[in-house]
Amino acid sequence: MKDEREALAGENLHEECGVFGMYDLDGNPVASEIYYGLFALQHRGQESCGIAVSDTKGPKGKVYVHKGMGLCNETFTPEILEGLYGNIGVGHVRYSTAGSSTLENAQPLVLNYVKGTLALAHNGNLVNAPALRRELEYNGAIFQTTIDSEVIAYHIARERVRTANVECAVANAMKKLSGAYALVIASPRKLIGVRDPFGFKPLCIGKKENAWILVSESCALDTLGAVFVRDVEPGEIVTINKDGIHSDKTMCLANRQKQARCVFEYIYFARPDSVFDGVSVYHSRIYAGRCLAKDSPVEADLVVGVPESGNAAALGYSMESGIPYGTAFVKNTYVGRTFIKPRQSSRISAVRVKLNVLKEAVAGNYDR
Amino acid sequence: MKDEREALAGENLHEECGVFGMYDLDGNPVASEIYYGLFALQHRGQESCGIAVSDTKGPKGKVYVHKGMGLCNETFTPEILEGLYGNIGVGHVRYSTAGSSTLENAQPLVLNYVKGTLALAHNGNLVNAPALRRELEYNGAIFQTTIDSEVIAYHIARERVRTANVECAVANAMKKLSGAYALVIASPRKLIGVRDPFGFKPLCIGKKENAWILVSESCALDTLGAVFVRDVEPGEIVTINKDGIHSDKTMCLANRQKQARCVFEYIYFARPDSVFDGVSVYHSRIYAGRCLAKDSPVEADLVVGVPESGNAAALGYSMESGIPYGTAFVKNTYVGRTFIKPRQSSRISAVRVKLNVLKEAVAGNYDR
Amino acid sequence: MKDEREALAGENLHEECGVFGMYDLDGNPVASEIYYGLFALQHRGQESCGIAVSDTKGPKGKVYVHKGMGLCNETFTPEILEGLYGNIGVGHVRYSTAGSSTLENAQPLVLNYVKGTLALAHNGNLVNAPALRRELEYNGAIFQTTIDSEVIAYHIARERVRTANVECAVANAMKKLSGAYALVIASPRKLIGVRDPFGFKPLCIGKKENAWILVSESCALDTLGAVFVRDVEPGEIVTINKDGIHSDKTMCLANRQKQARCVFEYIYFARPDSVFDGVSVYHSRIYAGRCLAKDSPVEADLVVGVPESGNAAALGYSMESGIPYGTAFVKNTYVGRTFIKPRQSSRISAVRVKLNVLKEAVAGNYDR
Amino acid sequence: MKDEREALAGENLHEECGVFGMYDLDGNPVASEIYYGLFALQHRGQESCGIAVSDTKGPKGKVYVHKGMGLCNETFTPEILEGLYGNIGVGHVRYSTAGSSTLENAQPLVLNYVKGTLALAHNGNLVNAPALRRELEYNGAIFQTTIDSEVIAYHIARERVRTANVECAVANAMKKLSGAYALVIASPRKLIGVRDPFGFKPLCIGKKENAWILVSESCALDTLGAVFVRDVEPGEIVTINKDGIHSDKTMCLANRQKQARCVFEYIYFARPDSVFDGVSVYHSRIYAGRCLAKDSPVEADLVVGVPESGNAAALGYSMESGIPYGTAFVKNTYVGRTFIKPRQSSRISAVRVKLNVLKEAVAGNYDR
Repeated sequence: MKDEREALAGENLHEECGVFGMYDLDGNPVASEIYYGLFALQHRGQESCGIAVSDTKGPKGKVYVHKGMGLCNETFTPEILEGLYGNIGVGHVRYSTAGSSTLENAQPLVLNYVKGTLALAHNGNLVNAPALRRELEYNGAIFQTTIDSEVIAYHIARERVRTANVECAVANAMKKLSGAYALVIASPRKLIGVRDPFGFKPLCIGKKENAWILVSESCALDTLGAVFVRDVEPGEIVTINKDGIHSDKTMCLANRQKQARCVFEYIYFARPDSVFDGVSVYHSRIYAGRCLAKDSPVEADLVVGVPESGNAAALGYSMESGIPYGTAFVKNTYVGRTFIKPRQSSRISAVRVKLNVLKEAVAGNYDR
Repeated sequence: MKDEREALAGENLHEECGVFGMYDLDGNPVASEIYYGLFALQHRGQESCGIAVSDTKGPKGKVYVHKGMGLCNETFTPEILEGLYGNIGVGHVRYSTAGSSTLENAQPLVLNYVKGTLALAHNGNLVNAPALRRELEYNGAIFQTTIDSEVIAYHIARERVRTANVECAVANAMKKLSGAYALVIASPRKLIGVRDPFGFKPLCIGKKENAWILVSESCALDTLGAVFVRDVEPGEIVTINKDGIHSDKTMCLANRQKQARCVFEYIYFARPDSVFDGVSVYHSRIYAGRCLAKDSPVEADLVVGVPESGNAAALGYSMESGIPYGTAFVKNTYVGRTFIKPRQSSRISAVRVKLNVLKEAVAGNYDR
Repeated sequence: MKDEREALAGENLHEECGVFGMYDLDGNPVASEIYYGLFALQHRGQESCGIAVSDTKGPKGKVYVHKGMGLCNETFTPEILEGLYGNIGVGHVRYSTAGSSTLENAQPLVLNYVKGTLALAHNGNLVNAPALRRELEYNGAIFQTTIDSEVIAYHIARERVRTANVECAVANAMKKLSGAYALVIASPRKLIGVRDPFGFKPLCIGKKENAWILVSESCALDTLGAVFVRDVEPGEIVTINKDGIHSDKTMCLANRQKQARCVFEYIYFARPDSVFDGVSVYHSRIYAGRCLAKDSPVEADLVVGVPESGNAAALGYSMESGIPYGTAFVKNTYVGRTFIKPRQSSRISAVRVKLNVLKEAVAGNYDR
Repeated sequence: MKDEREALAGENLHEECGVFGMYDLDGNPVASEIYYGLFALQHRGQESCGIAVSDTKGPKGKVYVHKGMGLCNETFTPEILEGLYGNIGVGHVRYSTAGSSTLENAQPLVLNYVKGTLALAHNGNLVNAPALRRELEYNGAIFQTTIDSEVIAYHIARERVRTANVECAVANAMKKLSGAYALVIASPRKLIGVRDPFGFKPLCIGKKENAWILVSESCALDTLGAVFVRDVEPGEIVTINKDGIHSDKTMCLANRQKQARCVFEYIYFARPDSVFDGVSVYHSRIYAGRCLAKDSPVEADLVVGVPESGNAAALGYSMESGIPYGTAFVKNTYVGRTFIKPRQSSRISAVRVKLNVLKEAVAGNYDR
């Protein structure tokens, strides 16, 4: 979780959005499940969120979408969720960046193309997005957002004109994309999950009753009472249709020479109760703390973490070093996205509002 | 004005949106002027509104846009208008149709294309839009809205790749468009106004100090204290840049055989204080009432109009027939877009809430 | 209707709020009927509105109330109206004054006193309110609002300690009140209507099926499909309980020497389709126009009214003088309570935004 | 902090509101400081909040107040805080109870009484409030809220008629009040702090530059960069005026036989970084954990706390028992007051959304 990072200004790391896709083969509506799933991914993005669904039994091409600035529980109401009727859908939470209104950049991106509708949610950053945009523009394309998802969608749309199905179009499009991406895509009759060839960003598969789930972090499966099935593999394209889940290994674009992971996922993006590619985030933090204790031993009365992600590392340091673990910071969990600063006088430090030192714990007389 | 029509359900006439463009050659910001202009066009659309501006002296391609569901004074605040910094811009009010969230359909449409940015606002309906959409999709296009403006924008973008300037791209694009359209388009350094070859929908030119205005109805010029210059001619493309206003007659695509006007503009879309192509809307209604009196004389005590657009016609009937003019309906002007109906009991007629008969005026003892 | 007055700043006439009370003897909920009634009284106040109801069959003292700043359709939703469950209730619309948040001044005033609950809505101004407040404070009273209703409520509460019923308490309290007031009061089992001894402010009685209504203007009865029964008389206390309507003439405090009416009701507060004390507001305006034509004849081409209340007077002038009636102003009905002025530049006159001259009608060539 | 308690429904403990008072002797506005102070007390109440201020140099009796449902950063904007101009003021956060609109119950209670204005914020519950209400009603009082503050205010108002100053009126009023209360009261020229004779609820004194502060928890002083001066003593009435702070010991109503503390403050209401009457909340929890370890020793692999307040107790248990401390729950901090439950399907447990078990930490192979 990224609480300590919020204090830092000027950063521009967009990569840790969260994506969620679900296809209920029994035809039950998925919007409220996606809502809960996004709730569990909320730490990955607080700028905006959105859900798009369609009904695989209904008329092809009817997609319901709702997007908004802010948190899930600010954006969705029971009425809105009821209106999002369909058994296949994708959702997205977006990381809060500075800057003015960006509702047009909220995801999922919903569009019409040659074969009907497509709803697409993306986590990651393409390194060649600017070049791809220019190339498309020189072919008469127009862009209404500044998100990479639009570039990806264009490539899928153009490939789809000449390929047999949407999976093939996705596979062809991927050959042009460089960078980090985990995608969930809902076409009228299919749910598709994709992970870039290096596997930078996480994506895993879950199942709840007769519904398949694709989600950035496994912790969301716990929230839903779903079971973890497996991770999507780097370069893999997973397709869920009415017959179940499929993965054509011949289409897998995994980079055989090199695999890579976004280390910040383990350090602070992810929730500690998630597991990526077989490694528990919590244990990786405990382990990092143990390593630090071996590499950099110190004499001290107390090991404390900066909440939240630092706590597990501090616990690991304490385990390895034998120095007692303690708490030295109290976080004000009510300081959220909408924290406003009065103009009248700003003699108050924002850090102090968010995090207070527990003086009793660190004063000379620490009670051991 | 279209008050009497609101009572009718199920209509689907989108054509009477309102558009407004402004270019201040002295570099003053235009957002608040556009805001007032949209205010004067509000009767043409209450579903959504929007303003997009850029600064001709600033970095090319920086466009500020704000759109929202509802009326101008629900959508814009002084803070938002201040943030819309630029001396060239376009605005739009959209007619309220039934249906769920359509924020993505709000205009102006703002996009990036091969030559930077474009902001486009459209009033009218293309009859060949579905065919043009299909053709574009078969060429790999993606659509994020269901408005005709997106189809128009695509054609301009594709033409712009191979033409010398945006006016030429617009002229080439117009050759493919069939139907009614009045367009205002802001490119980074130009404001362009276009009217379809038949001249179905109105668009006129105004001037205020050193700023040029393009607007659907002349009444908005009065509101701004601007002067009416002339109507844009059918098929004409008017360009305003730093050197002033230009119109290349050789590019004019006017239909020489036939001109056509949307008769509903005169009957009830437009405000009576507007003048289209030299004809006063108020006088046209007076005249229609006079004609009706000649064609269909009746014996009566009183001529009354159904507010608002019917009042002028009733006055004309009264003038011609000599039957006294009176008032027989009281309209509740507080019944707006957001009028909600309680679910508890709906024994009340919505019509009665909106319009009450002035019994005293029409009862037997009318005071002549 | 008071449109022309809105242009004037600094006025401080609070007297024209609107009140509405209803008691359904069959036990049906009245909130949505009160909502529609307030809608019809909306021209009397746009600052705030509120509804308070209780259930005469339910536990004594359970009152549901909802108040808010703004118009009825901004304040109430179907959900809120459903939550206002009860067959007896009062509502209020308050005139929009300048000044900051005044939600605490919104009515009805709901309170607990010695005999349970009381909900009170007031139209008018007490001239001796400041003196009464001081006297109460010297007896240990506390005031949480600045509205006269609170002063009235205190007097009723103090009288109720020593009187047999609430009507007597009201009658005793009235002896201390000087000024203009029309009151509707809901006690747990009774609805009470009161008009001051001079009869300054209007209040009339209506009936719809088995429900009794007390309301400021008769036009609201039309909206509800209710029938007009009669005006409450000056100084009269009308009581509605489960047995029907009652009026103890011995309690009537009418001023026998002098009656008085608020002339502004006829001139512009009221809707033209209302009738006060037997006089039609519309006819009174026609008549005023006729009188003016006799008193002040002029030579002219056209008689026009300043909308809205001026239109009927202009028609009367036209009838009497024989000078044709016409329209010369177009009002922008979208300029409402929430009209904001951009700070960027205020070169636009607010009057021009609200009211435009119909130049075609008044230019030299007026089409007669 | 009371996170674990939120899962329990139906509780009705109102006592842990938070109060904050400030008087800046240099005349600086205090609203933004109070805002930050309430922010630090937000864990004590999320239902509603409010600030009332006045200017000791300004006209007597001009109080600015703003109250709203929800959290501080939902209720206040920079504009609102600027409008709250004054160097003396009180603020309040209220605990979130079930039930419909209770804006009228939000505090501070602001009122006019015989000596001008009074703003009062209260933390605690009077046990004899119903009896006091009845008695007041039989003397003609009216009640507009259901909060005890109104009862307290009435008593102060009635005493003030016959006492020399407001402190004396407060002291006399206190003799009639039974129960728990910590009060901050702003009169036009004084800030008063009161704690009940048993000292049930906390209240302490702080100082920042030339401004005095009265606040429920000392952690808020840290947030403001203020220094802790001392606790208000049980039964004490502290007065701050332009000459500084005063406490007339002869007016102290402390119960000499018995002192009492609300144990829930130490167990979970309070933030661990607060100190009450010389006892650190954090240490008291550590100590409670140690005691539990002695009283109820167990064999275990791991001691974990239920976040947040349980963590310190778990740490104490770990220290005493030697069993390693760990983390087994991950809390979703985005589940707030506005958490909505979709109606579509409620197969998801709310507890699971809020709190997830860290399986890796508690599975058989716990990494020691």
